[in-house]
Amino acid sequence: MNYAGRIRKLRRALQKHQLEALWITHLPDVRYLCGFSGSSAVLIVTRRKAALFTDGRYTLQARQEVQGATVHIAAKSTVKEAAAWAAEEAEFAGFDPANTRVAELESYREALPRRQRAKFFRPIPEPLVMNLRLIKDEDEILLMQEAALMGCKLFDLIVPHIRPGMTEIEVAADLEFFARSLGAEGMSFDTIVASGVRSSMPHGRASLAKIPRKGFVTLDFGVILNGYLSDMTRTVHVGRATKEEQFAYDAVLAAQEAGVAAVKPGATMASVDEAARSVLREAGLAEYFTHGTGHGVGLEIHEQPRFAAGQEAKLKPGMVVTIEPGVYLPEKFGIRIEDMVVVTETGAAVLTPATKAWMEL
Amino acid sequence: MNYAGRIRKLRRALQKHQLEALWITHLPDVRYLCGFSGSSAVLIVTRRKAALFTDGRYTLQARQEVQGATVHIAAKSTVKEAAAWAAEEAEFAGFDPANTRVAELESYREALPRRQRAKFFRPIPEPLVMNLRLIKDEDEILLMQEAALMGCKLFDLIVPHIRPGMTEIEVAADLEFFARSLGAEGMSFDTIVASGVRSSMPHGRASLAKIPRKGFVTLDFGVILNGYLSDMTRTVHVGRATKEEQFAYDAVLAAQEAGVAAVKPGATMASVDEAARSVLREAGLAEYFTHGTGHGVGLEIHEQPRFAAGQEAKLKPGMVVTIEPGVYLPEKFGIRIEDMVVVTETGAAVLTPATKAWMEL
Repeated sequence: MNYAGRIRKLRRALQKHQLEALWITHLPDVRYLCGFSGSSAVLIVTRRKAALFTDGRYTLQARQEVQGATVHIAAKSTVKEAAAWAAEEAEFAGFDPANTRVAELESYREALPRRQRAKFFRPIPEPLVMNLRLIKDEDEILLMQEAALMGCKLFDLIVPHIRPGMTEIEVAADLEFFARSLGAEGMSFDTIVASGVRSSMPHGRASLAKIPRKGFVTLDFGVILNGYLSDMTRTVHVGRATKEEQFAYDAVLAAQEAGVAAVKPGATMASVDEAARSVLREAGLAEYFTHGTGHGVGLEIHEQPRFAAGQEAKLKPGMVVTIEPGVYLPEKFGIRIEDMVVVTETGAAVLTPATKAWMEL
Repeated sequence: MNYAGRIRKLRRALQKHQLEALWITHLPDVRYLCGFSGSSAVLIVTRRKAALFTDGRYTLQARQEVQGATVHIAAKSTVKEAAAWAAEEAEFAGFDPANTRVAELESYREALPRRQRAKFFRPIPEPLVMNLRLIKDEDEILLMQEAALMGCKLFDLIVPHIRPGMTEIEVAADLEFFARSLGAEGMSFDTIVASGVRSSMPHGRASLAKIPRKGFVTLDFGVILNGYLSDMTRTVHVGRATKEEQFAYDAVLAAQEAGVAAVKPGATMASVDEAARSVLREAGLAEYFTHGTGHGVGLEIHEQPRFAAGQEAKLKPGMVVTIEPGVYLPEKFGIRIEDMVVVTETGAAVLTPATKAWMEL
C-alpha cells in the first residue's frame, strides 16, 4: 500500500484548508493512512511529520504494521502523550466532527497545555481522509475484488445447503464457517438471513425462525479480507412461488440492473437512485422500496457516497459502491438484490458476478 | 424484561438532574430501555412520555420489539421528526456527550425550530442510562449466565480441535461455527486466536499464522445471546512447555484467582486490580502486565466499571465484570486468563466455570 502517497495527498488537503495538522482517531482512517489495525490510536499528521500514538498492548503490532509515521507507545495515556506532542508541533489542529464524540473532544482539550486549550482543535469543514478513501487506488480495488469474489463463492457454497426446517441461524453458521475456511478475517456485519415473512424486514438478522417450505430467503452478507469489506445480497425462493412473488422478483432484478447500468463517471447519485426506483415505480412497487439504492464500501461497510434522491454529487472512477434496491411487502415477503460495483474510466465493473437468476430451491 | 421499571428509574434520575427529557441515540441504551434492537433510532424519554423514532426499514421489527414507548416511523428524517416531537414536549433535553459525535449534535440542533436551537441540548453530567445498566437485574444475569456458559461449552469443544499446522483463522472458524450451531446471534468481538510468539500481542486477532508445534495459544472470545455478550479467555500450550512458560502460566493463574477472590460488594476497582497485579509483581512479571485487570460487560463488550490503579469507585451487587490479567513477553510469548464474574450480595460468582488448569495439548 502506498501509505506515503496517501499522507502526501492528505498534506495537500491540509494546506488547502490552512491547517497545520490533523488529529486522527477514527480507526479506518488511521489504518488507511499508516497501516495500523489496532483498536486504539491517535495519528497526528503535520505538514512535515506523522506520528502514531498507541498503548502497550500494541507495541509489537504497531512496529510490524505502521509505515510512514513514527510509533510512540504511551506509558500512561495515549491521548495525553499525543496531545503533548501535537501542542509542540502545531499551533492548532483539525479534528473530524463526524467521528469524534463530544466527550472525547473535551478529553483531548483537557490533555493540552492550559494556554492552548481554547483554540487548538478546529472542526474540519469536510471529511479530509474520507475524501481520499472515496477513490480506491489499484491496490485497494484488487483487495476489494478478492473480498467480493469470496462473497460470490460463499453464495455458491451456501445455496445447496438451504433446506426448509433449518433455522436462519444455522444457514448463517454454515455461511460463516465457509467464510472462515476460505480465510476471511471476519464478516463485514451481522449476517442477514431473512426467510418467509421475515424477508419483509430489510435488516432482519439471522434468527431462530425456520426456513419455511415456501417463501423467499434473503441472504445479505460480506467478508473482511485484508481489512476490506465485501457486501452482497441475493434472494432465493424455497418451493413453488406465487405469481406475485415472481413478478416482484423480476421487477427488483430489473431495477437492480438498471441501477448498475446507470453507474458511470459523472452520473449523479440521484440519477442512479432514480434509474433503479423508476423501474419499481412502473411495476407499481415503489412504495415498498423504503431505503436508498446503495452506498460506498471499503474499509467500512457504509462509506461515502450514498445513493438517494437529491444527492447531486457525482460518481468518479475508483469509487466502489453497492447497488441494492429491494421491495418489502409488510407481513408478506421481501426481496433485495445487491452487487458491489467499481466505477471505471468509462463505466462500471461488477465485482460480485454471482448469479442473480431466479432460483427455486 | 422490565422495561417499564427501567424507564421509571431513568425518570427519577432525570428529576434529580432537573432534566425535562433525555435524547437517547446510543443503541445499547435504546435497547435496554425499550427493547428495540434495530440499527438506527432516537428514543426520547420525558417525565411522562417515551417515544421511539426509527425509519421504514424497521416498521415490523419496532412493532414486535418495542415496549413502554410509542413507535414513530419517520417518513423522511428520523432526526427531524424526533426533534420536532421533542421540541413540543420539552424546553430542553439532556444528551450523552460520551456517545454523541460533534457533527451529530450539530445535526440534532439544526433539526430543531430555530428559536430553540441554542439552548435545547445539554450534556448530561453523568451517564444516566449506563448508571442503570451497570447493575444487572435478575433477568439480565440469567441471560448473561446463559451466554457465559455457551462460551465455556465452546472452549470444551474447540480444545480437541487445536492442532499444530492449522491456521489461527481455522481455529477461529471452528469455534465460531460451534457458536452458531449452539444458537449464538454472533460473536461479541473479533475472535482472538494468538499462537506462539503472536500470543505476546494482547489483542492479536486470528491470522493466517499457523499453530506452532510448541507454544501458547490464547483464545479470547465471546458470544452474543439475546443481545447480551459473553467474554472469556483461556491460554493452552501446544507441545512441551519450558520452565519459564510454566512459571509464567502459574503466576497469571494465581493473579487471576486473586483478582476473582477480591471481587465483593464495597471493594474498590483499584483494590481488585492491585490484588491481581501484586501477585505478578511478586513473580517479577508486573512490567509485562500492560493493561487493566478487567471491565464491565453486558449489552456492550466494554462497559463500566473498569479495573485500574486509581479507580476508587466501588463494586455493587449486580455488576458483571471480567477479571483478566495477562503477561506479554515481547518476541517470546503471552498468557491471559479471563473469567466473567457477577458481584453478589456477599461476594462474587464466576459465570465462566471452564477449566483454567494447565493444559498441554
